[in-house]
Amino acid sequence: MLFFTQCFGAVLDLIHLRFQHYKAKRVFSAAGQLVCVVNPTHSLKYAPTRCAAAQTSTEQGILPPCHHHEAVHDPQLVPCTCPLYSCPWEGHLEVVVSHLRQTHRINILQGAEIVFLATDMHLPAPTDWIIMHSCLGHQFLLVLRKQEKYEGHPQFFATMMLIGTPTQADNFTYRLELNRNQRRLKWEATPRSVLECVDSVISDGDCLVLNTSLAQLFSDNGSLAIGIAITTSKVHNAEDEM
Amino acid sequence: MLFFTQCFGAVLDLIHLRFQHYKAKRVFSAAGQLVCVVNPTHSLKYAPTRCAAAQTSTEQGILPPCHHHEAVHDPQLVPCTCPLYSCPWEGHLEVVVSHLRQTHRINILQGAEIVFLATDMHLPAPTDWIIMHSCLGHQFLLVLRKQEKYEGHPQFFATMMLIGTPTQADNFTYRLELNRNQRRLKWEATPRSVLECVDSVISDGDCLVLNTSLAQLFSDNGSLAIGIAITTSKVHNAEDEM
Repeated sequence: MLFFTQCFGAVLDLIHLRFQHYKAKRVFSAAGQLVCVVNPTHSLKYAPTRCAAAQTSTEQGILPPCHHHEAVHDPQLVPCTCPLYSCPWEGHLEVVVSHLRQTHRINILQGAEIVFLATDMHLPAPTDWIIMHSCLGHQFLLVLRKQEKYEGHPQFFATMMLIGTPTQADNFTYRLELNRNQRRLKWEATPRSVLECVDSVISDGDCLVLNTSLAQLFSDNGSLAIGIAITTSKVHNAEDEM
Repeated sequence: MLFFTQCFGAVLDLIHLRFQHYKAKRVFSAAGQLVCVVNPTHSLKYAPTRCAAAQTSTEQGILPPCHHHEAVHDPQLVPCTCPLYSCPWEGHLEVVVSHLRQTHRINILQGAEIVFLATDMHLPAPTDWIIMHSCLGHQFLLVLRKQEKYEGHPQFFATMMLIGTPTQADNFTYRLELNRNQRRLKWEATPRSVLECVDSVISDGDCLVLNTSLAQLFSDNGSLAIGIAITTSKVHNAEDEM
């Protein structure tokens, strides 16, 4: 009986995910655009144990996390921090992708334009939604974070980071787009490098920022669809000159 | 001597305004786009006196302001509130334009695309920056408001309202665009009617919302340039279907 109940639950989940996928495609109306359903990462109370284990296995020296020291831009010399809110892991630039895949089971998606569908937006802060995005010969991270910068007032912060150096990051432009119910919000900027630390990008507010009320206006059944596009900076500059 | 000092001050102000105008044009890079320098409206402590005088002169009945009653959509029957934060004036839809021009000295600009250059962004909340925009046979209001929705944390809210009924407003789409230093933020939505009250639009967060840090990133020397474009809704819907 328990087996059948579990099977029924799994089928319902699949139907729900399929429905969300269909809705996100309809919202963005872009044939061929890849829609990726992204669940929130594990909460703070589970993460440290898993990340501590990962930290031991990488045999990296223990350094203070990046909000305690200045970012240095030589990936050969300086460890960087895992961009997930709850994870204290640090490692060289070259092993960030494998850390995110193995420890956090973050998927990598291919393609210049994808739709990121973050589920369970109602979960309490702090929560991260994250996806890796392989595009134009590089790996990027989209980090969506729910955080209480001001106590009792959670906000959503979305940014794109390059798993590479700041110099490499300057060659790209990313665009995040929300589109629902005759409202549209677009944010375009140069991605930051993961070496610069996502915490400082968010504390500076140099990213797409949504109040809870605005996030609710763009959400559908507790899920937020964000269209992502990455281009080389030449395209962005050419647009500026138009 | 005092006369020469004042003349010199006026010339400096003119040079400063001209410089701001040039910078806004350069930022938006759109030849022929009208740039309008908008100073903040008078603060709360001056406004009630002026507005009380205006209220008496219009000989309107005293009704509670719109955040105390439901908006009713017949402009022939129901007074509406002045959209400025500090003004308690109420009057019929037909006289809102003359109230804003005469009492608040708000300019009307012509053209489908203009650049709104709000000065003195550092002024404490609450402050309004407002301009009327005549376009496609109708008058619109751009309201930029600095307000502390959460005590000690001022935010900027920008919205466009039609000086007309909600049914008329549904025929249009407005776009607000910030563009500076390789960052771009665009908000597109259907304008609300002034009968729906700007206070409720802002408290719902159904507008462009900027934290102080994000506003600073887009500001230049304390001024914020916002590109405004208005189109009929058909264009917006056609874009959605692409």
